[in-house]
Amino acid sequence: MTDAQNKPCIICVAITGSLPTKANNPAVPISIEEQLESTHEAFEAGASIVHAHVRNPDQTPTSDPDKFARLKEGLEKHCPGMIIQFSTGGRSGAGKARGGMLPLAPDMASLSVGSNNFPTRVYENPPDLIDWLAGEMRTYGVKPEVEAFDLSHIFQAVAMWRDGRIPDTPYIQFVMGVKNAMPVDKPAFDFYVETVRRLVPGGEWCAAGIGAGQLTVNEWSVAAGGHART
Amino acid sequence: MTDAQNKPCIICVAITGSLPTKANNPAVPISIEEQLESTHEAFEAGASIVHAHVRNPDQTPTSDPDKFARLKEGLEKHCPGMIIQFSTGGRSGAGKARGGMLPLAPDMASLSVGSNNFPTRVYENPPDLIDWLAGEMRTYGVKPEVEAFDLSHIFQAVAMWRDGRIPDTPYIQFVMGVKNAMPVDKPAFDFYVETVRRLVPGGEWCAAGIGAGQLTVNEWSVAAGGHART
Ligand SMILES: [Zn+2]
Ligand SMILES: [Zn+2]
Ligand SMILES: [Zn+2]
Ligand SMILES: [Zn+2]
Repeated sequence: MTDAQNKPCIICVAITGSLPTKANNPAVPISIEEQLESTHEAFEAGASIVHAHVRNPDQTPTSDPDKFARLKEGLEKHCPGMIIQFSTGGRSGAGKARGGMLPLAPDMASLSVGSNNFPTRVYENPPDLIDWLAGEMRTYGVKPEVEAFDLSHIFQAVAMWRDGRIPDTPYIQFVMGVKNAMPVDKPAFDFYVETVRRLVPGGEWCAAGIGAGQLTVNEWSVAAGGHART
Repeated sequence: MTDAQNKPCIICVAITGSLPTKANNPAVPISIEEQLESTHEAFEAGASIVHAHVRNPDQTPTSDPDKFARLKEGLEKHCPGMIIQFSTGGRSGAGKARGGMLPLAPDMASLSVGSNNFPTRVYENPPDLIDWLAGEMRTYGVKPEVEAFDLSHIFQAVAMWRDGRIPDTPYIQFVMGVKNAMPVDKPAFDFYVETVRRLVPGGEWCAAGIGAGQLTVNEWSVAAGGHART
């Protein structure tokens, strides 16, 4: 049923994320220079996609296009051929600021297509903002990675693909283990995979587990023929 | 596998909803008097739960506790034994106003346990509001009907049951067919049922399809041993 044994696994490295600081882990790369060094190590070790957030000097997340521009320039020089994916997630900015870096035309960008709860708040992705972000991605030739925090987000990605808001076969990432959203659950994971196979034949997908679930979800993903996000 | 053939099907009648007006359908009951008349007809026809919203004289939705009190008084008189369920949904009020009628101690109240997109906006149910509504339901002995607009909402109901925020076996309603949330999809419906059976053994559930999906989802629900919402 799966071609897990034969096909290369894409490893997507999330070098920084939006939340951890040096107080949580001194190795978290914060400055562009630290991010380039850390990405280069992962690239040498075989990672082929870098999922990037940028930070302010005080370590808080930002969507500042200048910072993304400097990161992209450095990555193109130091990690030639690596696929660059920028985050448009809601922890780094609000409203259209979340997509202010898309004119830099990275290879990919993350795209949330629905709303859900996070540990202490609502992760708000209003329909018109989603459509605007998807439109910017089409304009600048950026391939979305759909972040599926819940089952309906897979259906929404399919609906957007069918009506052209997502031009090519959607690439979907399942996110599990966020408190108050979808937990790390094997039958749900299997149903996610089944749903993508049913609705997006030949579609590629990846999966990420948050915190303690990270390795578990990576193992499920690779075994089922998906890709892995660190 | 199911006891659909032998067990009585609970019919829950949503007499008014939060959105339709007399312009959409002249038969929509708006005043308390019209709601009582309409519920009484459904009660005589076999409905055992009434899911109630109340309206302002201009037909807009409200959470006004005085209106709910008058409705409850009338229902107790005209439909003795009928289970009264008040809506705490976000279309009729904002924040804690959504639960201002819970001290009236209806038998049941709807409870959203996650957030999701609606056709034109985010349906916001922040974690602290959910916990407050669930707490008011415990205080006043109101049984929640969990509104599951997505798969993770079933998991969230289970988590709340396990840690005591929902004291008894959760009663879960699957809602399908809302644009930008979960569509009417048979494999997803089957997986919902499977998930409830796995995580809430013996738990009762019902399902509602919105608009064109209403009869389809009712049929699936009754065939699988669930209850039906009009
Ligand atoms: Zn990210
Ligand atoms: Zn990925
Ligand atoms: Zn309702
Ligand atoms: Zn119901």
